[in-house]
Amino acid sequence: MYAPNRVRKFTENIFKAIGCSTKDAKLAADVLINADLNGVDSHGVARLAGYVRLFDHGRLNPKPNINIVYETPSTATIDGDKGLGLVVAPFAMKLAIKKAKNAGSGWISVQNSNHFGIAGYHASQALEHDMIGWAMTNAAPLVVPTFSKEKLLGTNPIAVAVPADKQPAFLADFATTAVAYGKMEILQRKGLNAPMGWVQDENGNPTDNANAVKEGGGLLPLGGDREHGSHKGYGLGAVVDIFSGVLSGANFGPWVPPFATAGFQGVAAEQVGKGTGHFLGAMRVDGFRPKEDFKQSMDKWIERFRSAKHIDGNPVQIPGDQERNFRAERLVSGLPLIDPVVDSLKELGERFKVRF
Amino acid sequence: MYAPNRVRKFTENIFKAIGCSTKDAKLAADVLINADLNGVDSHGVARLAGYVRLFDHGRLNPKPNINIVYETPSTATIDGDKGLGLVVAPFAMKLAIKKAKNAGSGWISVQNSNHFGIAGYHASQALEHDMIGWAMTNAAPLVVPTFSKEKLLGTNPIAVAVPADKQPAFLADFATTAVAYGKMEILQRKGLNAPMGWVQDENGNPTDNANAVKEGGGLLPLGGDREHGSHKGYGLGAVVDIFSGVLSGANFGPWVPPFATAGFQGVAAEQVGKGTGHFLGAMRVDGFRPKEDFKQSMDKWIERFRSAKHIDGNPVQIPGDQERNFRAERLVSGLPLIDPVVDSLKELGERFKVRF
Repeated sequence: MYAPNRVRKFTENIFKAIGCSTKDAKLAADVLINADLNGVDSHGVARLAGYVRLFDHGRLNPKPNINIVYETPSTATIDGDKGLGLVVAPFAMKLAIKKAKNAGSGWISVQNSNHFGIAGYHASQALEHDMIGWAMTNAAPLVVPTFSKEKLLGTNPIAVAVPADKQPAFLADFATTAVAYGKMEILQRKGLNAPMGWVQDENGNPTDNANAVKEGGGLLPLGGDREHGSHKGYGLGAVVDIFSGVLSGANFGPWVPPFATAGFQGVAAEQVGKGTGHFLGAMRVDGFRPKEDFKQSMDKWIERFRSAKHIDGNPVQIPGDQERNFRAERLVSGLPLIDPVVDSLKELGERFKVRF
Repeated sequence: MYAPNRVRKFTENIFKAIGCSTKDAKLAADVLINADLNGVDSHGVARLAGYVRLFDHGRLNPKPNINIVYETPSTATIDGDKGLGLVVAPFAMKLAIKKAKNAGSGWISVQNSNHFGIAGYHASQALEHDMIGWAMTNAAPLVVPTFSKEKLLGTNPIAVAVPADKQPAFLADFATTAVAYGKMEILQRKGLNAPMGWVQDENGNPTDNANAVKEGGGLLPLGGDREHGSHKGYGLGAVVDIFSGVLSGANFGPWVPPFATAGFQGVAAEQVGKGTGHFLGAMRVDGFRPKEDFKQSMDKWIERFRSAKHIDGNPVQIPGDQERNFRAERLVSGLPLIDPVVDSLKELGERFKVRF
């Protein structure tokens, strides 16, 4: 087990070592550590070496000049200047919140960014302002639309954060696929097969091969197959791609560049926009209803769902419960980093003369 | 086959017969006929008798005084005054478009409404203004959250309409469940079983019983089971419920009143808000990017997805293609109303002395 603050400090120092300002390094580290604390191990410091590789490949600007390229009272597009998504997305979310204060809601599309970490971190920034937060991003193509043999969409996550009163906040944060790609990587490491309904092979046939995505197959959209609504998961992933990529002027569809860790994918020769795209939003709850009324109704919603008659041993969870449970445990016990992640951090430490 | 204009005129006359203004009757009929034209038979004139039953039960005000109860430059809540959702939702969408013209985007939550027909109709109103349209609604509880034995959510659809240039518009419009309830009704009529993964029984076990929802079971969220991401479908349905119900001050969760046709459901004794809730939105694409650039990128998106290498005989569809294909055919051939629907229309005709 590793103390969160030790890992946090190390992560900050690595970001500083590649040229980030102290402020940006702290922010980027905060996003990653929060993924680890919340149990989303695939999106935490396991990716630190990947961000450094992006820098090595000239795809990451450690001192970006993030600026607004287009705006109205409640909307804007910002150019991330090839900065860390971990820094660009919080900039966009701050702008969304500022616009929401003045106009009731704020919606920001982002071009020219990189992987932004966990969507839920960004959406949750709205909560302390008594706003509903929204965050989505496109990502490199790993997912096959219904009936496609080609991978044309990323796992394109959506996060929505909703404040409550006495109850903890509602936080839905999920990839628009049957499973996140990180689950395939875990199976690969363990040499296990995948359940049917997660992936298809290069001919478009169902398969349990955990390596299928690397061998010409693809992740299936949420729903799995047409009979069980995969066209809905595809439609949802498409909406995320359009809002994040087409609306912002970033790349979209199969042209979205890979995060540095996906060794089997290259950057598409043709680029149809700039970098990776995101879409973030904030809405004041009192743009619709007195906020006390809203929050009390949310408490009632949460209490009712949490107390539902449930299947033996499996209480009904409120979106966000799982993250909170991990967090409560890991703040005490520390982060259970696996050996390959620890090794990657040690390598970074040696390279940049930063003690882990 | 029935000529769309004949069915449209009849539908208008029935709405007038229960007291709607000519303008409202025309609008409500337009929403229903468009469902039939687009192949969404479950949401078209098959429901006309249901709307009349709502009126008979005192739950429908044919002459509503729809008004804005709360607003900011880009948000508002409207009270539908127990009007037809078919009329209240278009009112809300007009307001969303007006706000988007001034503030870049407009987001309207709706309380005290009734079933609004197909979500896609409302989202699509944004297209001619070069805006992206968004429509969602909550609905009576038919759906079990992951691990729940109780039905706490409706099929809670989401529709997103996006304009393109030379290509027809993108229109995603789907229930947040594995299947819409209408599919179960079709199986019931034919005496067939359901595929596994659509419903569970009253004990929370998987079943292929097409009557399961009426017998204490429930529809499964998109994803089907936990292993295939049902918690994501549940989270998405929850977001729709919160935006439509909690944000507006309408009923939410298990308290949402049933549409009149669901004979096995009653109105909950406790009401936590007013009527059924919706959420509608519009965003100017040129609130983010010059609109010509956006539309050309959308064309490129659509062309790339449509031309994807596909599984034999099944080209990759763009969300909205299915509706357009039905429409092209039915504008020529007419509407294939099934006998029970025709009977229900004839009964209405006799009751209100309107010729079908």
